[in-house]
Amino acid sequence: MKYEAINIKEKLSKFDELWSPRVIAEMNDYQFKLAKGEGEFVWHHHPETDEVFILIEGELEIEFRDGNVSLSPGEMFVIPKGVEHKPHAKGLVQVMLVEPKGVVNTGSVASELTADNDIWI
Amino acid sequence: MKYEAINIKEKLSKFDELWSPRVIAEMNDYQFKLAKGEGEFVWHHHPETDEVFILIEGELEIEFRDGNVSLSPGEMFVIPKGVEHKPHAKGLVQVMLVEPKGVVNTGSVASELTADNDIWI
Repeated sequence: MKYEAINIKEKLSKFDELWSPRVIAEMNDYQFKLAKGEGEFVWHHHPETDEVFILIEGELEIEFRDGNVSLSPGEMFVIPKGVEHKPHAKGLVQVMLVEPKGVVNTGSVASELTADNDIWI
Repeated sequence: MKYEAINIKEKLSKFDELWSPRVIAEMNDYQFKLAKGEGEFVWHHHPETDEVFILIEGELEIEFRDGNVSLSPGEMFVIPKGVEHKPHAKGLVQVMLVEPKGVVNTGSVASELTADNDIWI
């Protein structure tokens, strides 16, 4: 039997919505999600978990209350549990997120940018 | 304060050993590891966890008892918990692995390819 690889860029081509993560894989109780973004996201934090960003396309700045990190394609960063952050992209960015199943994109903050969760593509 | 992104290819340039994963990041009790391989690895399984392969460079075939999957750069696959598998690379491959901290590269099989665990670069 031939099993199917998950092609990250092919999955990214399947949606256009910004700040609306799509699930592409599950490992134990963790999920791998793809998201697109442009402009400013909201300040938020995830009280219960770390969160991983892996940059696929574009340039992403993540602001913290005491600094920032800039991510280019092929770079990643682990946002520690409970740390407030605000993603910020000048142009379109495409990222892979890794976090436990059930984590909401805006964390503990209710926002018009709060997206539906657990949408698979 | 300027935080540092983790650059995957820069980390890959820091070691040459084959089939010997190096840790580059930790998210909760999970680790992101880089590994290089060439030729045949051993049949093994991880009785307690799924395992994610993300292909960075080269072409990797993962054999299962009932089939196989081929991975190119930008593709990923989740090996289900308990499923026997054997990675196999014609040329050099470079991969990122995601799995719980403490998972050994040869799983439940003791082999001359069993590598030290939890080596950070």
